[in-house]
Amino acid sequence: MTTSPTPPGGSFEGRLHLFPVRVYYEDTDLSGIAYHAGYLRWFERGRSDMLRLLGVDQRAAIEDGEGHYAVADLAIRYLRPARLDDVLIVETCALEIRAASIRLRQTAMRDGEPIASADVRVGFLGPDGRPKRQPESWRKAFQILIAPDKDCA
Amino acid sequence: MTTSPTPPGGSFEGRLHLFPVRVYYEDTDLSGIAYHAGYLRWFERGRSDMLRLLGVDQRAAIEDGEGHYAVADLAIRYLRPARLDDVLIVETCALEIRAASIRLRQTAMRDGEPIASADVRVGFLGPDGRPKRQPESWRKAFQILIAPDKDCA
Amino acid sequence: MTTSPTPPGGSFEGRLHLFPVRVYYEDTDLSGIAYHAGYLRWFERGRSDMLRLLGVDQRAAIEDGEGHYAVADLAIRYLRPARLDDVLIVETCALEIRAASIRLRQTAMRDGEPIASADVRVGFLGPDGRPKRQPESWRKAFQILIAPDKDCA
Amino acid sequence: MTTSPTPPGGSFEGRLHLFPVRVYYEDTDLSGIAYHAGYLRWFERGRSDMLRLLGVDQRAAIEDGEGHYAVADLAIRYLRPARLDDVLIVETCALEIRAASIRLRQTAMRDGEPIASADVRVGFLGPDGRPKRQPESWRKAFQILIAPDKDCA
Repeated sequence: MTTSPTPPGGSFEGRLHLFPVRVYYEDTDLSGIAYHAGYLRWFERGRSDMLRLLGVDQRAAIEDGEGHYAVADLAIRYLRPARLDDVLIVETCALEIRAASIRLRQTAMRDGEPIASADVRVGFLGPDGRPKRQPESWRKAFQILIAPDKDCA
Repeated sequence: MTTSPTPPGGSFEGRLHLFPVRVYYEDTDLSGIAYHAGYLRWFERGRSDMLRLLGVDQRAAIEDGEGHYAVADLAIRYLRPARLDDVLIVETCALEIRAASIRLRQTAMRDGEPIASADVRVGFLGPDGRPKRQPESWRKAFQILIAPDKDCA
Repeated sequence: MTTSPTPPGGSFEGRLHLFPVRVYYEDTDLSGIAYHAGYLRWFERGRSDMLRLLGVDQRAAIEDGEGHYAVADLAIRYLRPARLDDVLIVETCALEIRAASIRLRQTAMRDGEPIASADVRVGFLGPDGRPKRQPESWRKAFQILIAPDKDCA
Repeated sequence: MTTSPTPPGGSFEGRLHLFPVRVYYEDTDLSGIAYHAGYLRWFERGRSDMLRLLGVDQRAAIEDGEGHYAVADLAIRYLRPARLDDVLIVETCALEIRAASIRLRQTAMRDGEPIASADVRVGFLGPDGRPKRQPESWRKAFQILIAPDKDCA
């Protein structure tokens, strides 16, 4: 019998979601640094983990024919290279919650310095691929993400 | 003995570079459509193919310690979903050529309709990771990409 | 108006399916060569292209609730490194066709030399994830892959 | 100021290395389950984490021109599908330690059941790509992985 090690996952600190990733071989390219498209995978893991912690079961929503999230647009700036074995913290903060979409700011930090930062708009879509209101219970859960008095850092 | 089939590659049509890709299993996710980060891989293939056709040997530049390109920033809009077996044409058009960077517009088209479109800024970096002037011969080759009288579509 | 460049695809030479791939940035890692897991993506593209040429519409089969292929087991040997810009030809040859599975040998060649070679068993599964007989018309189409008098090279 | 959440990582239980992964969107394909090539990325993360815990600094070895590991061959069986949000434990166990290579058995477990299992041989290569003896201190560290009296489960 083996006891399970802690599954990977993030946590909230106030309205900020923190999600750690490590840079592995698969993430690098021959220039020696992390390949640019990999950041989108890391940011998606961060978003999925944030949703999971808020009680959103994306897999059930797809299997039940409710719908799924899809990135609508995304703007990313690469500020510093990341290298093999680096530990990055993906910080996720909500910019806007709407009926059928969320806008988030996500920043990969290393030792307190930003490595890459993106503004991402994610829409909820029905099985037909058309925009759809997010389930009421989800939108309620998202209220924790909004702080009226301060912006994303 | 087998004769080799045509290697994958694109072509120029005027100042526009066209690069075909097909959507494979690896590119899809459980929502049934192409995963958003995969477009960045397709666009990078398009850029690399364009450079190759212009005579830029990225591998030699890295191996000789000359330098390499890295994405500095990127903004992408996802307009329509792509599905398994779809053939997309990645159209690449130069917005700006500078001493140490290029700005491109890249659009994935399907049957004449845009599926996703991105503005990408790519910087040339020395082996130390700092911005560096692109080799003179490369910049000369890039002049073909610039048409003074018209913009990227 | 732009004319479309040739979509990527392979061809048959006798019972051997040939599928060209090029090594891009995304395929390399910081050791400077193609990352080992990427070969499985290339081999899958080769299998999907072979099925497409034989008239198998995998996307329709999934959307119609018919079923889908899944790799059951795979053994691969990496013989030589592949590098950025290399053109590889994925050769696919059938070892065995059974009611609910296919066994294939797939080899990535470069300039006539094998780079990596795999034996792959792929099973057909119903939407419930259980083994299922492949559609009769597909199995008929697969007969072209079997040559009684010679083995895969 | 934010406190860092625990970086992802594994641990030893006796001579068995345990490494947790979660299945994200990026890992799935349109058939609804984890794409087969993704397991190789998970197993590589497990190996890299095991090496890291044993004191092997792969990045320094590459940057110092010492050498790097490369997969020589690999045989994997897919036993059960993995789905979005599943937590898998990658168990890694050494089958053989040689001068210039290691042979490992790696199994992805879910709730005590095997999902996929692979035997992997990894060789150490010099910067010229030729087999090379692993550093003496590394091989000493690997002795903890070998139990003379019992086999990998």
